[in-house]
Amino acid sequence: MAHITLPDGLPGIRGPMAFRPDTAKPLNELVDVLLRGPHTLSPGERELIATFVSARNDCRYCQTIHGAIAAHHLGGDEALVLNVKSDAEHAAISDKLKALLVIAGKTAESGKLVTAEDVARARGHGATDLEIHDTVLIAAVFCLCNRYVDGLATWAPDDPAFYRQRAALVAENGYAASTLQRTAQ
Amino acid sequence: MAHITLPDGLPGIRGPMAFRPDTAKPLNELVDVLLRGPHTLSPGERELIATFVSARNDCRYCQTIHGAIAAHHLGGDEALVLNVKSDAEHAAISDKLKALLVIAGKTAESGKLVTAEDVARARGHGATDLEIHDTVLIAAVFCLCNRYVDGLATWAPDDPAFYRQRAALVAENGYAASTLQRTAQ
Repeated sequence: MAHITLPDGLPGIRGPMAFRPDTAKPLNELVDVLLRGPHTLSPGERELIATFVSARNDCRYCQTIHGAIAAHHLGGDEALVLNVKSDAEHAAISDKLKALLVIAGKTAESGKLVTAEDVARARGHGATDLEIHDTVLIAAVFCLCNRYVDGLATWAPDDPAFYRQRAALVAENGYAASTLQRTAQ
Repeated sequence: MAHITLPDGLPGIRGPMAFRPDTAKPLNELVDVLLRGPHTLSPGERELIATFVSARNDCRYCQTIHGAIAAHHLGGDEALVLNVKSDAEHAAISDKLKALLVIAGKTAESGKLVTAEDVARARGHGATDLEIHDTVLIAAVFCLCNRYVDGLATWAPDDPAFYRQRAALVAENGYAASTLQRTAQ
C-alpha cells in the first residue's frame, strides 16, 4: 500500500503524478525533451540509459516500463534490453553507448564518481558534449523518478503484457500526453 | 574544469542550464512549484529539506546556495541551517519538519528505505499527504540536481558572500526568472 492516498488504479509514477498535476506537468515535459526530443542518440538508446539507471537503482516499475519502451523503439528486442541491464559491456550496442552507460551508472551512484577518463572514453567513440550532458541528466532524472516511485511505496503490475501495451502508447504519444489518460494502461 | 564546455562564469547548475535551455525550463518550473508555490510548509522549510538532502549527497554548490536561500527566508538565521545539516533532530525546527527530514534523508539514499513508521511519525506531528508527497519529491529532485551539478564537474564559488547575494535574488524572483539572468550572481 502506498504511503499516501493516491488515485486508484494508476501504477508506479502515475499515481503520484495524478495526485500532484502541478509537479507532474514540468516533470513530464523534462522527460519528453530528454527522451523524445530531436537528438543524435535515438529514442531507443536514451530509453536504454533510463532503463539501465533504473535497474541500478532497483526500481521495478521504472526499469520495467522504460525497458519495454526501449524494446518497442528497438524493434521489440527485449533480449537486448535484458543484456544491457545485466552486462552492458558485452551487449550488442555501440561502443559510444557503452561508454555513456558507464557515465550514467556512475552518475546514479554519485556525480563525483564520473572521471575525465570516463568522458574521454565516450569522446573517443564520438560522443558530443550534448550527448554527455544528456546522459548525465537522464541518469539524474531517473534517480529522481526511481526515488519518487519507491519513496511513496507505489505499486507495480506483475504482468509483462501491461508494460508492453503501455510502452506502445507512450512511444506513440509521449509522456505528457500519455499521463493525461487516466486508464490503467 | 567541467567535463564539457559550458558557458563562462556561471557556477553550479547554472552552467549546464545555460548550455541546455530546453531542459532547464521545465526543471526550473518544477523547482519553482515545489519550493515556492503556495504551501503549508514555508519556503524556508522547503529550502531546508533541499539543503539537508544536498548536504547528505555532499554537493557543495547545492547545499551552499539552498542553505543561503533557506537562511534568507528564515530571517538570516545561518546557524539554524548549519544545525539542520549537522544534527536535525536537535535543531530548532518543528517536530513535523524533523520527521519529514527523516523521510527526505531516506529517500535520498533509496526510496525503499522509507517505512510506514517514518510516515506515521510525520503524520503524528500533523503532516498531510501533500506535505509527505512533496518531501519525497523535493528529496528526489535534489538527488537529480546534485548529480547534475557534480556529474558534469561544475565549479562552485568559495566566497559565502556570493551565495548570500544570489540567495536574495532567487528568493525575490524565483528560479526560472533568476536563471535568465546571465551574470555571475
